[in-house]
Amino acid sequence: MAESLNAKGAPKPAGPYSNATWERPEGRLLFIAGQVGITTDYKPVGDGGIEEQTKQTFRNIRAIVEDAGGTMADIVSLVIYVTDIKDAVAVNKVRGETFDSTYPSSTLLQVSAFMHPSLLVEISAVASIRV
Amino acid sequence: MAESLNAKGAPKPAGPYSNATWERPEGRLLFIAGQVGITTDYKPVGDGGIEEQTKQTFRNIRAIVEDAGGTMADIVSLVIYVTDIKDAVAVNKVRGETFDSTYPSSTLLQVSAFMHPSLLVEISAVASIRV
Amino acid sequence: MAESLNAKGAPKPAGPYSNATWERPEGRLLFIAGQVGITTDYKPVGDGGIEEQTKQTFRNIRAIVEDAGGTMADIVSLVIYVTDIKDAVAVNKVRGETFDSTYPSSTLLQVSAFMHPSLLVEISAVASIRV
Repeated sequence: MAESLNAKGAPKPAGPYSNATWERPEGRLLFIAGQVGITTDYKPVGDGGIEEQTKQTFRNIRAIVEDAGGTMADIVSLVIYVTDIKDAVAVNKVRGETFDSTYPSSTLLQVSAFMHPSLLVEISAVASIRV
Repeated sequence: MAESLNAKGAPKPAGPYSNATWERPEGRLLFIAGQVGITTDYKPVGDGGIEEQTKQTFRNIRAIVEDAGGTMADIVSLVIYVTDIKDAVAVNKVRGETFDSTYPSSTLLQVSAFMHPSLLVEISAVASIRV
Repeated sequence: MAESLNAKGAPKPAGPYSNATWERPEGRLLFIAGQVGITTDYKPVGDGGIEEQTKQTFRNIRAIVEDAGGTMADIVSLVIYVTDIKDAVAVNKVRGETFDSTYPSSTLLQVSAFMHPSLLVEISAVASIRV
C-alpha cells in the first residue's frame, strides 16, 4: 500500500487526499493516461452527470491498475481536471468512496475543455506497484 | 524502450498514446519542463500554426531526452496542454508521426493561456532512461 | 541535491527553472499534492496578493518536503497553475528566491479556477529524496 504523509507544517488536506505520497521502495511506477467517464465501447455512462462520470473514470483507472497487477491502494498521485469547479464536491464524494484509509496525493483544478464537450472530469494517475 | 499497457477493462486509447506506461526496472526518471514551439533563439517556427508548433515542441523534447542519453522511446508520460481543443486533431497527427510502436501514456486538455499569447500548445514529459 | 540538465538543442529556460531534472539514483520519489497560499489554519496570508500567496505556497511545500526528510533542493518537478498568466512575473521572482543554484524542471500555465475564488496560484511538486 502507498505510504502517505501529512506534514504538520502544511494545511491539512481539505478532502479525501494526502499532502504527499511516497513511491514504494520496492515498487515500479506506472504512469496512467488521463481517464474519462466513458465505457469500453466509448459510451457515456449512467445519466452522464458528474458523479456517474467520476465513478466510471475511477473504474477505468482501476481496470488499468489491476491489469498491471496492482490495486487502487498503489496509486500515489492523482491530477483531477474538471470543467466546473463546483463539481469538486461530487468528485470528492466519489473519491472518498473509492479509496480506503490511504489517500493518494492529489491536485484538482478547473480547465477549459476536454476532447468531447460532454465530458465533465478527467483524471490522470501514477501508481507505484510492488514488483 | 518504455513498456506500455492497454488494459482490456478500460476504453482503448483514442489516439496515438497508451493507457499506461511503466518506468523501466533499470531506468532513471527524467522530469522534463513544459516545452513550447520555439527555437533555441526563442523564435516562433514555420507559420506558427499548431502543426508546426507541435513539431518544434517535440524537437525540443527530443533534444533534451537525447542530451540525457535517451531516445523518444524512453518517454513514459506526456501532458499536452492546448488553448483550443480543436487543435487536438493536428497534435494527434504529429504525435503519431513522432512516436513509433510504443506510445507513452498521455493526458490532453484545454487550458486558458501560456506564457506568450502566440503559443498554442505546451507539452511536459517524463522519460525513464536506462542507466 | 537534484541534478538538472539544460540541453543545448532546446531553448534555454526563460526563468528560474531547468529544462529537465533527474531523479536521484539513490532516491525515493515523493508526490506532493497541489499546495496553495493558505496557512495551517486555512487563512489567506498577508495581503492575499500573488507574491504573498506564492511565498506561502512554497512554505507549505517546504514543510512537506522537510517533514519527509528532504530539502527544497530535492524537488525535481513543479507544475505551477495560475488564474492570470500576468502573475507569472511575480511567481518567477518568488521561485528564483526560493530555490538555490539547482532549479527543478517546471511547467507553468493559466487555468480557469481553483477550489476557492480567492486563490491565484496552485503548485504541485515531485521530490526525489535520499533514502
